[in-house]
Amino acid sequence: MAEDKTYPLVIIGAGPAGLAASIYAARYGVENLVIGSLLGGQISETHLIDNYPGIEDMSGFDFAQKLGHHAQKYGTEILPAKVKEILNKENGFEIFLDDDKKIESQTILLATGTKRRKLNIPGEEEFAGKGVSYCATCDGFFYKNKTVAVLGGSDSAAGAAVYLADIAAKVFLIYRKANLRCEPYWCRLIEKNPKIEVIYNTNVIEITGEAKLSQLKLDKAWQEKDDLPVDGLFIEAGSDPNIDFAKKLEVAVDDGGYVKIKSDCATSVAGVWAAGDITDGSDKFRQVITAAAEGAIAARSIFNYLKK
Amino acid sequence: MAEDKTYPLVIIGAGPAGLAASIYAARYGVENLVIGSLLGGQISETHLIDNYPGIEDMSGFDFAQKLGHHAQKYGTEILPAKVKEILNKENGFEIFLDDDKKIESQTILLATGTKRRKLNIPGEEEFAGKGVSYCATCDGFFYKNKTVAVLGGSDSAAGAAVYLADIAAKVFLIYRKANLRCEPYWCRLIEKNPKIEVIYNTNVIEITGEAKLSQLKLDKAWQEKDDLPVDGLFIEAGSDPNIDFAKKLEVAVDDGGYVKIKSDCATSVAGVWAAGDITDGSDKFRQVITAAAEGAIAARSIFNYLKK
Repeated sequence: MAEDKTYPLVIIGAGPAGLAASIYAARYGVENLVIGSLLGGQISETHLIDNYPGIEDMSGFDFAQKLGHHAQKYGTEILPAKVKEILNKENGFEIFLDDDKKIESQTILLATGTKRRKLNIPGEEEFAGKGVSYCATCDGFFYKNKTVAVLGGSDSAAGAAVYLADIAAKVFLIYRKANLRCEPYWCRLIEKNPKIEVIYNTNVIEITGEAKLSQLKLDKAWQEKDDLPVDGLFIEAGSDPNIDFAKKLEVAVDDGGYVKIKSDCATSVAGVWAAGDITDGSDKFRQVITAAAEGAIAARSIFNYLKK
Repeated sequence: MAEDKTYPLVIIGAGPAGLAASIYAARYGVENLVIGSLLGGQISETHLIDNYPGIEDMSGFDFAQKLGHHAQKYGTEILPAKVKEILNKENGFEIFLDDDKKIESQTILLATGTKRRKLNIPGEEEFAGKGVSYCATCDGFFYKNKTVAVLGGSDSAAGAAVYLADIAAKVFLIYRKANLRCEPYWCRLIEKNPKIEVIYNTNVIEITGEAKLSQLKLDKAWQEKDDLPVDGLFIEAGSDPNIDFAKKLEVAVDDGGYVKIKSDCATSVAGVWAAGDITDGSDKFRQVITAAAEGAIAARSIFNYLKK
């Protein structure tokens, strides 16, 4: 990283979107710097990845290393730092790191993904990746014929429960209110699915187990017991885009705070692109494979922009 | 393959889009049949793939096997056949194979990609993958500091020449007419790039070499010679979507014949989705990574459709 030069492209975020963009940018001859505090981003915390076509049953950590290695082969520099703020200046950007160093760039790619909302209850951190998951699509397949619980009442919680019911033997959907807040379509699917049981008006207050999660402590007895034995807990408390550091750029966002992108991943601000889970692209599917694809698309568009 | 049942989903095309869709569909519990005459589709013919993030320097053939293995792990059945025709019937589709067998399905995913237009000149087939390429983005990186030629005068030919000039030592752009037909933006880039030399009013009539391509025979002498020594030839004669077999479905297509898709990869016809190079999606970038992403997006949308 050099403070005295202007990078053609600075990519913020070292997850699949950022690293894919870096690979493509390098292939296009666009010198780029990747800034990210965690190589691989959220996937580095996923216990096993099997939904990235061509990569079978690989730990998220190993996959993150693989992506990083691929990018670094092209000479990509990955700076393990956090961005504090970005300012738009004439013909480019000033990027301030949390150690107050400043980096300048002609273009920016926002690829910092999302943060899953946590419950902040005892055991949640301890059993993360050991029964506690924040992504049914990522991890559901590992609970074939097991008992799982989903926590939440939203469309995505309901969708997770329906998805898991096709795999698991039994799915508890635990929600703190008296009625789910999902769309009728999802509620009907929940009601008619014999494998799904909804536990209303209830919170999970503690997660316990030995090497892996084995029980959830409820704040209200269910079938006369406070403890619910399960093999897995899927927390669907929602996600929020990691965008605070870029607030001053004033890129247009949707109702959920996700960055609106065009078909080439350009944002509403000239010189700024976005890719991966932080965007409203790819039908909001937010998978590793869609993040990587958006990174590639953004890189080509940035190449074309810089050539002009 | 069973003729006496109705598959929830039939995927036509066994390339990255089709196989990614199959993996995702299986994960969603949607039984599916993949019909494709070539495992991996076009990529199986690419000599080396290095632009699929996480997969470094792998032959297209090996990568195709890897994708096929991944899909088959989920129980996917891949039928090596060609589809002759698809008919829309009430609540589903009839798919006719070239051996006149008929398969029925509730939904269809079109993932048959494109065909690169060929020159049909001597040596073209012999040196395919041995110096002759139809994709600068795929193969350009392997010509670092070498001499290459691009054949064509379109935006994509010009784009390929500019892209290759960042990598190769010298790029000849050979076009049969007196003026390139690319946009001014690209023409300016071509003109001002000292590494690119345009050879106008000229056709390549033969490709020669030993183990690899080494010379192009021109139909008009250039610098008093009919033979042009090069290390690689990129044929940019355009591509056409492989859609003939699905004509009777009457899905909406763009001016180039590519299938128009919505953000969830649905086409204009209920029950029919499309993914990969055959579509107008992903900013028309048409890479392996974008094809796989579209396959995943389509599978989720098909799952939601079948649940209703």
